[in-house]
Amino acid sequence: MSHNTFGKLFRFTTWGESHGAAIGCVVDGCPPMIPLNEKDIQKYLDMRKPGTSRFVTQRKEDDEVSILSGVFEGKTTGTPILLLIWNKDQKSKDYSEIRNKFRPGHADITYFLKYGIRDYRGGGRSSARETASRVAAGAVARKVIDHISKKKILIQGAVTQIGKMSINPRHFNWNEVSKNSFFCPDKKIISTWEEYLDLTRKNGTSLGAKILVNAKNVPSGLGEPIYGKLDAELASAMMSINAVKGVEIGLGNEAIEISGDENSDEIRVKNKKISFSSNNSGGILGGISSGQDINISIAVKPTSSILKTKKTINNKLKNTTISTKGRHDPCVGLRAVPIAEAMTACVLADHIMRNKAQCG
Amino acid sequence: MSHNTFGKLFRFTTWGESHGAAIGCVVDGCPPMIPLNEKDIQKYLDMRKPGTSRFVTQRKEDDEVSILSGVFEGKTTGTPILLLIWNKDQKSKDYSEIRNKFRPGHADITYFLKYGIRDYRGGGRSSARETASRVAAGAVARKVIDHISKKKILIQGAVTQIGKMSINPRHFNWNEVSKNSFFCPDKKIISTWEEYLDLTRKNGTSLGAKILVNAKNVPSGLGEPIYGKLDAELASAMMSINAVKGVEIGLGNEAIEISGDENSDEIRVKNKKISFSSNNSGGILGGISSGQDINISIAVKPTSSILKTKKTINNKLKNTTISTKGRHDPCVGLRAVPIAEAMTACVLADHIMRNKAQCG
Amino acid sequence: MSHNTFGKLFRFTTWGESHGAAIGCVVDGCPPMIPLNEKDIQKYLDMRKPGTSRFVTQRKEDDEVSILSGVFEGKTTGTPILLLIWNKDQKSKDYSEIRNKFRPGHADITYFLKYGIRDYRGGGRSSARETASRVAAGAVARKVIDHISKKKILIQGAVTQIGKMSINPRHFNWNEVSKNSFFCPDKKIISTWEEYLDLTRKNGTSLGAKILVNAKNVPSGLGEPIYGKLDAELASAMMSINAVKGVEIGLGNEAIEISGDENSDEIRVKNKKISFSSNNSGGILGGISSGQDINISIAVKPTSSILKTKKTINNKLKNTTISTKGRHDPCVGLRAVPIAEAMTACVLADHIMRNKAQCG
Amino acid sequence: MSHNTFGKLFRFTTWGESHGAAIGCVVDGCPPMIPLNEKDIQKYLDMRKPGTSRFVTQRKEDDEVSILSGVFEGKTTGTPILLLIWNKDQKSKDYSEIRNKFRPGHADITYFLKYGIRDYRGGGRSSARETASRVAAGAVARKVIDHISKKKILIQGAVTQIGKMSINPRHFNWNEVSKNSFFCPDKKIISTWEEYLDLTRKNGTSLGAKILVNAKNVPSGLGEPIYGKLDAELASAMMSINAVKGVEIGLGNEAIEISGDENSDEIRVKNKKISFSSNNSGGILGGISSGQDINISIAVKPTSSILKTKKTINNKLKNTTISTKGRHDPCVGLRAVPIAEAMTACVLADHIMRNKAQCG
Repeated sequence: MSHNTFGKLFRFTTWGESHGAAIGCVVDGCPPMIPLNEKDIQKYLDMRKPGTSRFVTQRKEDDEVSILSGVFEGKTTGTPILLLIWNKDQKSKDYSEIRNKFRPGHADITYFLKYGIRDYRGGGRSSARETASRVAAGAVARKVIDHISKKKILIQGAVTQIGKMSINPRHFNWNEVSKNSFFCPDKKIISTWEEYLDLTRKNGTSLGAKILVNAKNVPSGLGEPIYGKLDAELASAMMSINAVKGVEIGLGNEAIEISGDENSDEIRVKNKKISFSSNNSGGILGGISSGQDINISIAVKPTSSILKTKKTINNKLKNTTISTKGRHDPCVGLRAVPIAEAMTACVLADHIMRNKAQCG
Repeated sequence: MSHNTFGKLFRFTTWGESHGAAIGCVVDGCPPMIPLNEKDIQKYLDMRKPGTSRFVTQRKEDDEVSILSGVFEGKTTGTPILLLIWNKDQKSKDYSEIRNKFRPGHADITYFLKYGIRDYRGGGRSSARETASRVAAGAVARKVIDHISKKKILIQGAVTQIGKMSINPRHFNWNEVSKNSFFCPDKKIISTWEEYLDLTRKNGTSLGAKILVNAKNVPSGLGEPIYGKLDAELASAMMSINAVKGVEIGLGNEAIEISGDENSDEIRVKNKKISFSSNNSGGILGGISSGQDINISIAVKPTSSILKTKKTINNKLKNTTISTKGRHDPCVGLRAVPIAEAMTACVLADHIMRNKAQCG
Repeated sequence: MSHNTFGKLFRFTTWGESHGAAIGCVVDGCPPMIPLNEKDIQKYLDMRKPGTSRFVTQRKEDDEVSILSGVFEGKTTGTPILLLIWNKDQKSKDYSEIRNKFRPGHADITYFLKYGIRDYRGGGRSSARETASRVAAGAVARKVIDHISKKKILIQGAVTQIGKMSINPRHFNWNEVSKNSFFCPDKKIISTWEEYLDLTRKNGTSLGAKILVNAKNVPSGLGEPIYGKLDAELASAMMSINAVKGVEIGLGNEAIEISGDENSDEIRVKNKKISFSSNNSGGILGGISSGQDINISIAVKPTSSILKTKKTINNKLKNTTISTKGRHDPCVGLRAVPIAEAMTACVLADHIMRNKAQCG
Repeated sequence: MSHNTFGKLFRFTTWGESHGAAIGCVVDGCPPMIPLNEKDIQKYLDMRKPGTSRFVTQRKEDDEVSILSGVFEGKTTGTPILLLIWNKDQKSKDYSEIRNKFRPGHADITYFLKYGIRDYRGGGRSSARETASRVAAGAVARKVIDHISKKKILIQGAVTQIGKMSINPRHFNWNEVSKNSFFCPDKKIISTWEEYLDLTRKNGTSLGAKILVNAKNVPSGLGEPIYGKLDAELASAMMSINAVKGVEIGLGNEAIEISGDENSDEIRVKNKKISFSSNNSGGILGGISSGQDINISIAVKPTSSILKTKKTINNKLKNTTISTKGRHDPCVGLRAVPIAEAMTACVLADHIMRNKAQCG
């Protein structure tokens, strides 16, 4: 896991800048003989596509993926799969505002400090546009998981909090998630969130979000202690997503506040099947999956690009101010759901293969 | 980063089980010509050593480290450094209770499910004893950092919460941390914590903790987007520590609840030096260090080994119960401070070298 | 170094099949601020281009490279560089002969045995067409080397033997290499080689070749013992080239037949500069460059696709015969020169960066 | 594969210097439940042990290996295996001759140029003593191979040439190899070799050797094109052995001199079993094993430490001379056989696991 490659046996390398010619990735290590075509990938890209509501940017991203290698007569061949998405939205924009100024909260300044050069067009490499490549790789990962696993592994994500407004856990219903543009599992909070976001946008500011990713039917035994632990690699995967500032497994921070007695997931056997009295651990013990559901929560900070004027400097190191006009999501967290799902799929595909190699 | 190796250019591989013959690690990639001897390492192992108060286990761990290779005439030679610690506390114990039973909340069951075999003595490989090797590697990492960096990088950790009891942030004082056995920066809360832990132990249960790690004088430019981001690798490092269930960078989860306006770290220049109005980002933007302090928080779950009787199964897959007698920390989080510091040092040493290679 | 990625800090991942939509590579880890455009790469691709004489295949490969990412305003940005070459020569050919039959000496059968599927069109992934991506990556590597190195490192290759016909070492002249289509440094042997190859082709068969790669001005200190030795990684790089069956460093096999006394490269100092009485070691001692020229020889087997009918089997595991018609090089070794140079450039760029990280 | 770690899934990291406290390695990724004890490893170390004839050095190396981790109740547990060999032969020697002088043909000078420091005692890290760790790792690799493979894979090595004296291929008999101290498969040449080596030693010089390693019953499908090819990784493994200057697969260099027609290994099927008319390819096509025997040859240069006085420089960069007294093998190649076998075993174990992960 380094630079632009993620994963060890199932791995992908992404490339491309927000407003360059194209973006994409190479998926390497994929097992052969798995049926795969563009549609398998496109459907996940479409889920991520902006423009589905007034709360996500109106950028016209068709995000049409092409498979340029690694698939022959409809099946993977075991060779690297090149996925390519042309950037159609490259129109020569007015970059005068961000060309020479560093947007607070963005990577503009750190890319400049590290590399001495940055592609300022739409954030260049640091733009969340890169995550389209992850979603594409994640679609392949899901095919790999389905191909290898005995049981259908189900990976799903939901937004459980926007700003200060959390869902009511008792209303949690996975079936609701696909029915609204917030990936929200609690239908009763939707109208509140709509007003909240409208108000936030009117105020020229933005809100953070909390995302839950859940994976069902994950086999036990995934994860390579001590430094390839499943939770550690999921944490790395999640923290690599733009704007993510926190990752929790199972109860996460809440576990601090309860006693060891309450936190204990007791173990039982019934009909030779192992079960647990609770799942505070989030399905991972000692870095290895236990067979319970895997639950990961991530904290996404509020969108950094806001209409309100903020102090900053330019690349001549002079003080100035900036106000980000144009399309911007009042809550980028809403966009993170399919990405977090995709990263989870990639980690699981990789670990299924790794476990097969050592313990299969 | 995989299996038992951590890091890419500065990397270490740990080995050893809790009650095996010895534990240790190989540190590979260390630059040459750095003065290094056992004392440099021993002082950090002594910080980690149990038995310093009644709140940490009384195991007599001398944890005396030997350097078996890679150092010649008092200096590193650029070749691998083998650090070895004999396990002196290997007395033939009565393992009858844990030999055949899986302790809830421990990795006993997942190691068994994955490998079909486990060294049950004291948790074997999954024991926190492994972290002594990390502390040793971290001591070498600190020497590397000092050797390469212009400015002295200071890495320090503190416990900011035990169970439901948080410190008062306004009383935070780094100088207090080394003066008590809780790594506590708020001297006013110490007596409260003492009573709280005493009571917890009396009740046969345990508490979780929150740890803050802070690194000062970290140069800007560390981190390799997109999949070698500094925050992602710190998250992985922290999540790999026993009992850690959450990792936050900067404001972390709190960032969800404030507006983008409030969260914005505005940028200023004064005397050609870049500064920020706040450090909500925790010193990392887009996966690259900004030059601000790096702040990481971790959530440690309550100790899983508790006196209270809990339901579990044995390795014949029969239902039974377990109660963990003997020495046990009522709050393992207290032990995590030097380990979290060590992992931070290792990540920074690695990234300083990686940045030097590409951008130096 | 694994699967489709080569290198550690300067690394590239190739993708694409001979008759798929496109081939290319992602170059990752490239330092920023290096001027780079398509022409820098195109000139090396043109050197490799088939069709320059009657001894190399007449395939119309334009091999026009596009840079799709990682370069901004004419300079590298430190982000991944995607190089893409469309396959223009994809006309629907008659593959009936090779579709179901395994060509002896080719990877047809081993890909089938490993993956259970193979892209039979032109050899698919196992085709030497993949090497165009290496040449492209090698062009970037040369820019990196020039950017970092104090002295201009010169990497050049030559064919020193075809079949049983070796050049006369006393006639060796690097200036001749670019003047003929054999990369031959001995102009007196060219007409002999022409006749020899004509005759070979008339006989429906083919010949092997020996290639020498020489690198001048390589700094001392490159190479990471014990398992990242410079010679070991060069050997791996060379052996990964299609049809290569042997790699030698310096005297190579000849060193077996002389005494330790004769083989000894004595060391001298003059004007504080270290020199050696000879270079039998090929510029590498203990896996680390000594500052002398690096010399590597590779043995390329005769082209496996020949007109003569050979026994083989088909994918129904029935016995049959095959005769490869159509364009084919009577000596593929001639094509290996720019590829071997490119791989050498990539290994050197990688090791220059690796050495900088640890010892710079 | 980098620095001091070899392999990807089955991998080992060696550490230790020739005259340091100890040498050894960590074997990581080993599957669980494999019976393993010190004797399994010791028998291969004993094969490598010097002092078995007057043609190998009389150093009293007991090379007694201890397993410090990763094995529990006689079986591997899937956790890292630490193998340790104390250096018993550390007596304070007179190093005055090599302390300040660089021995020609040795890595003394390149370690010094790279690291600015070197452990001069017996060559330090660059000594062939490191290979004892490889032999130990190789013993574990053999256990892994036996555990996973259906058919018993047999890996054996032989010396086929010393100086200018080659064996007669028609007398080749594997059964002879273990009966003499030359690992010689041709019993008729032994007395000649004895005289040849005696004479060479009398002359104060040394001889090179050629080694053949053969692996039988290797399954087809091992190897990961394009940059994890089986032959490329074997080449890297072999070239990493001290004093090796050439590696050939199958016919190797000889393939240059025969026609494509002669070189063709024709394919046949009989009783649904695939066979080949010859094995010029050495069992590998396109980087993937074909199911035929794997044959690798390596060229070992003559011992660099010779009695004859040679010109060199000291570490003050002054010209001087050196003559290496004391025990030295007249032909280090003889020592390379168990090491080359061990490296082959490690590469095969690694690739068996890698193939299982992707295609199993």
